[in-house]
Amino acid sequence: MILKTVFLGLDAGGKAVAVLHEQDAEQLGAMSLARITIRTDVVEQTAIVHTSTDLVQPGHIGVCKKVWAALGLEEGVDVEVNVAPFPASLLFIRNKLMGRKLVYDEILNIVEDTIGGKLSDVEIAAFVTALHCFGLDLDEATNLSRAMVKTGNMLKLDKQPVVDKHSIGGVPGDKTTLLVVPIIAACGLPIPKTSSRAITSAAGTADRAEVLMPVSLDMGEMQEVVERTDGCIVWGGSVHLAPADDIFVKVEYPLSIDPLLLPSIMSKKKSVGADLLVVDIPCGRGAKVKTIGEADLLAKDFMEIGSRMGMQVRCAVTYGEQPVGYAIGPSLEAKEALEALMNRGSASDVVEKAIAVAGMILEMAGKENGREHAAEALRSGKAEMKMREIIEAQGGDPRINPEDIALGSHQFTLQSDRSGIVLWINNALVADLARFAGCPKDSGAGILLHKKLGDIVDEGESLFTIYAERSANLQHALDKLENFRIMGIGNRIEMLIHEVKERPVTERTFALDR
Amino acid sequence: MILKTVFLGLDAGGKAVAVLHEQDAEQLGAMSLARITIRTDVVEQTAIVHTSTDLVQPGHIGVCKKVWAALGLEEGVDVEVNVAPFPASLLFIRNKLMGRKLVYDEILNIVEDTIGGKLSDVEIAAFVTALHCFGLDLDEATNLSRAMVKTGNMLKLDKQPVVDKHSIGGVPGDKTTLLVVPIIAACGLPIPKTSSRAITSAAGTADRAEVLMPVSLDMGEMQEVVERTDGCIVWGGSVHLAPADDIFVKVEYPLSIDPLLLPSIMSKKKSVGADLLVVDIPCGRGAKVKTIGEADLLAKDFMEIGSRMGMQVRCAVTYGEQPVGYAIGPSLEAKEALEALMNRGSASDVVEKAIAVAGMILEMAGKENGREHAAEALRSGKAEMKMREIIEAQGGDPRINPEDIALGSHQFTLQSDRSGIVLWINNALVADLARFAGCPKDSGAGILLHKKLGDIVDEGESLFTIYAERSANLQHALDKLENFRIMGIGNRIEMLIHEVKERPVTERTFALDR
Repeated sequence: MILKTVFLGLDAGGKAVAVLHEQDAEQLGAMSLARITIRTDVVEQTAIVHTSTDLVQPGHIGVCKKVWAALGLEEGVDVEVNVAPFPASLLFIRNKLMGRKLVYDEILNIVEDTIGGKLSDVEIAAFVTALHCFGLDLDEATNLSRAMVKTGNMLKLDKQPVVDKHSIGGVPGDKTTLLVVPIIAACGLPIPKTSSRAITSAAGTADRAEVLMPVSLDMGEMQEVVERTDGCIVWGGSVHLAPADDIFVKVEYPLSIDPLLLPSIMSKKKSVGADLLVVDIPCGRGAKVKTIGEADLLAKDFMEIGSRMGMQVRCAVTYGEQPVGYAIGPSLEAKEALEALMNRGSASDVVEKAIAVAGMILEMAGKENGREHAAEALRSGKAEMKMREIIEAQGGDPRINPEDIALGSHQFTLQSDRSGIVLWINNALVADLARFAGCPKDSGAGILLHKKLGDIVDEGESLFTIYAERSANLQHALDKLENFRIMGIGNRIEMLIHEVKERPVTERTFALDR
Repeated sequence: MILKTVFLGLDAGGKAVAVLHEQDAEQLGAMSLARITIRTDVVEQTAIVHTSTDLVQPGHIGVCKKVWAALGLEEGVDVEVNVAPFPASLLFIRNKLMGRKLVYDEILNIVEDTIGGKLSDVEIAAFVTALHCFGLDLDEATNLSRAMVKTGNMLKLDKQPVVDKHSIGGVPGDKTTLLVVPIIAACGLPIPKTSSRAITSAAGTADRAEVLMPVSLDMGEMQEVVERTDGCIVWGGSVHLAPADDIFVKVEYPLSIDPLLLPSIMSKKKSVGADLLVVDIPCGRGAKVKTIGEADLLAKDFMEIGSRMGMQVRCAVTYGEQPVGYAIGPSLEAKEALEALMNRGSASDVVEKAIAVAGMILEMAGKENGREHAAEALRSGKAEMKMREIIEAQGGDPRINPEDIALGSHQFTLQSDRSGIVLWINNALVADLARFAGCPKDSGAGILLHKKLGDIVDEGESLFTIYAERSANLQHALDKLENFRIMGIGNRIEMLIHEVKERPVTERTFALDR
């Protein structure tokens, strides 16, 4: 069929999309999401069919940017359009839908076509859903990790061993990385840390670090910083370690599933050249992993995939039933971390966790008594000095002090209406409340806890303060406070959690961090 | 956040979509596929977020047709945009993704939101994929059928019992319906038959019937035809019995999965008010259902769901290892069916199958010796007369004769290069070849078999003829013939089917009919 080109000017999410009028599509026998070849005198390109009754006229073909550029088209030119077979990657996805196991070549093909815009959202969604429903076995997880490494950028450092740490996330206020990176770098080990921004949480490590320094470095800049200081805290999105993962995560988000947890983490660690890796698995009610047994099983998978990819992995199963430290929100957390680095803070759990994780890394690198080394680096001020070096290398102000960090000026402190002990803190609601207050975008927004689990509370004592940069956001958070009990105060756990009188519409808690 | 409206003029597949610039989306904390509320002074509407860097400028919100109309917007007006929670239907989909069973209210909510454009393609794809991976139990299949009935059009006939037949499809050349409908109507039972067009096959029953008469009738026209003649053969797409199914099938098509087979069929039968139903399950190598055991299990499900929905169902497990009759392609098949109705044809299997299915229906309606009644209706010419009445009522020419049906003028007949017996016919390749020749859009295109299973073939004898309306299409089919052996001729089955020397890229045969 000969059709006249129309430039749509659409990016179509980077996909190779062409829009046919429904009549032409029917005539051609091309349903929506079928594939067609578009041929000029010179080149041929395959595109995914979308049909429309209004975007293009019959006799015309609307072409998105990617295909337009590939074909070097001009407006109103005749092209020959034919039905093309589905790409092999889609045949492999169909096999996964049948519960079949995929081999490396097949997975690589799917990953390449995902990045290349050759698979539709529907097909990518089906792939991710099938991975979730059937699960990935260790071979598949390893091969998916390898495929993501192959299709992304790589960091190559001369110094060895390269070490790294990662938390699977899910616990609010976890600023451990802001301490571990300078501690490890101060001990002379290169730790090229890339971190995520918040997707569902109040702050990602990249959001926290950005309060102190620029984090959107490219790969060359990142390499320079690490070569100069042995450390860095860079936003992973700017170094393109695993472009496929950036696409998969967009599907995972509305679906609240994360079958790519392992490959996503392991591929990025391999891409920065990590030899030794500690994975933090926060565990408990309100964390991603609910039980210690489950955490150990996940740890085993991390270790096995690491070993297959040439990385030595150990895991830290950590206490995740309440926020880490007192501060939740980018600026509040950056401040708490900086205070801890300056030996000024009161958040002993933050320090303890950082020393534990850093200690494990140091021991993997052959230093005995890793924890003591880590504690010493912190106590001596070497970690603080190193952090200031990193801040400077990344383009921030190395003289920054905790007092310089601006917090939201709109504040509200909740007082306890009873005396008792803090019996529970709801991680998910803490994160939600911080987001209503403006996190992560308003970096000065957040929650500062005044009490944590087991603390004794008198009636009228402050429980927590909400910070917001804008009064509307503070009001928004306060409105939510009516239904959100983020802390339970009492002398004993109440037996009845809640009554179910009609069919509940259950929203599972879901934390997605990349 | 206050943004200025921009009308995008996009239909967005009927979805409630709004496009934000990436910067604004980030500022708002709304990832792609998040939900936002758009508020004017007067109304508020929820939309699915798409992000772009070029479709809209920062500070603007691009609005698709559906939302534009709902809000009564004008270009360049300020609207207030806020992040909204995900719809409950998506929470239910998430629960299905966790392997949970869905109840009626939840399924109805998903179906309504699918039709209402409140779910994105990714979310609908995940739902269909999860149904496929975890399966639907009978409760879910029944509830999905009910939800589709509730959200679609209904036919209400006075006469009772209303009868119907349906084939799950998958076998080329199956023109049984073109005989069964007039036979049953000639016996005085109302059979308001809706049929599908080809999606992956060479011809759907609607495509076949359209050669003889118009089939795109609306519900009112269909009702009139049935009230006048007791029968009809109408394209299901034009009467909107199950609009949700039309959306789901678009996802099923690229994925080659069909978890909605049962609900799709049963909902449409309920919607036309069927009391008695025969479901044809073609069975065998090359059919959708490979074994008789599998066919019986599927039959049981049809019967159980039917009984729950107040329909009496029986199933005909039929031989499906080769095409039904000799003709494949809309016009060839219409011609063969008309000849059979006129007692002129040679396709004894077509007649036998039609009499068997019609006989079952008649017996369900209380007529003893159903087959004899059916055969008599055919033999006496009553069925032919009834067919001509239906053709006239639907707006076709009642005097149409087989010779009047135009076939493609570009033809090629393949001669056998050896003597022997027809040992096998590959259904999928027959359909593919017919599609390459132009089916279903070129109604005169197709394949006419000269030999069928078990027939004796002499070297040089004709095996089949390819018909095409355009020489390019004939050439296209001939090119494919090099790799397509659609028939096996020999004296014994060869033991080696094929060698596998390298990793095969397997494309499963998949027949999708609606």
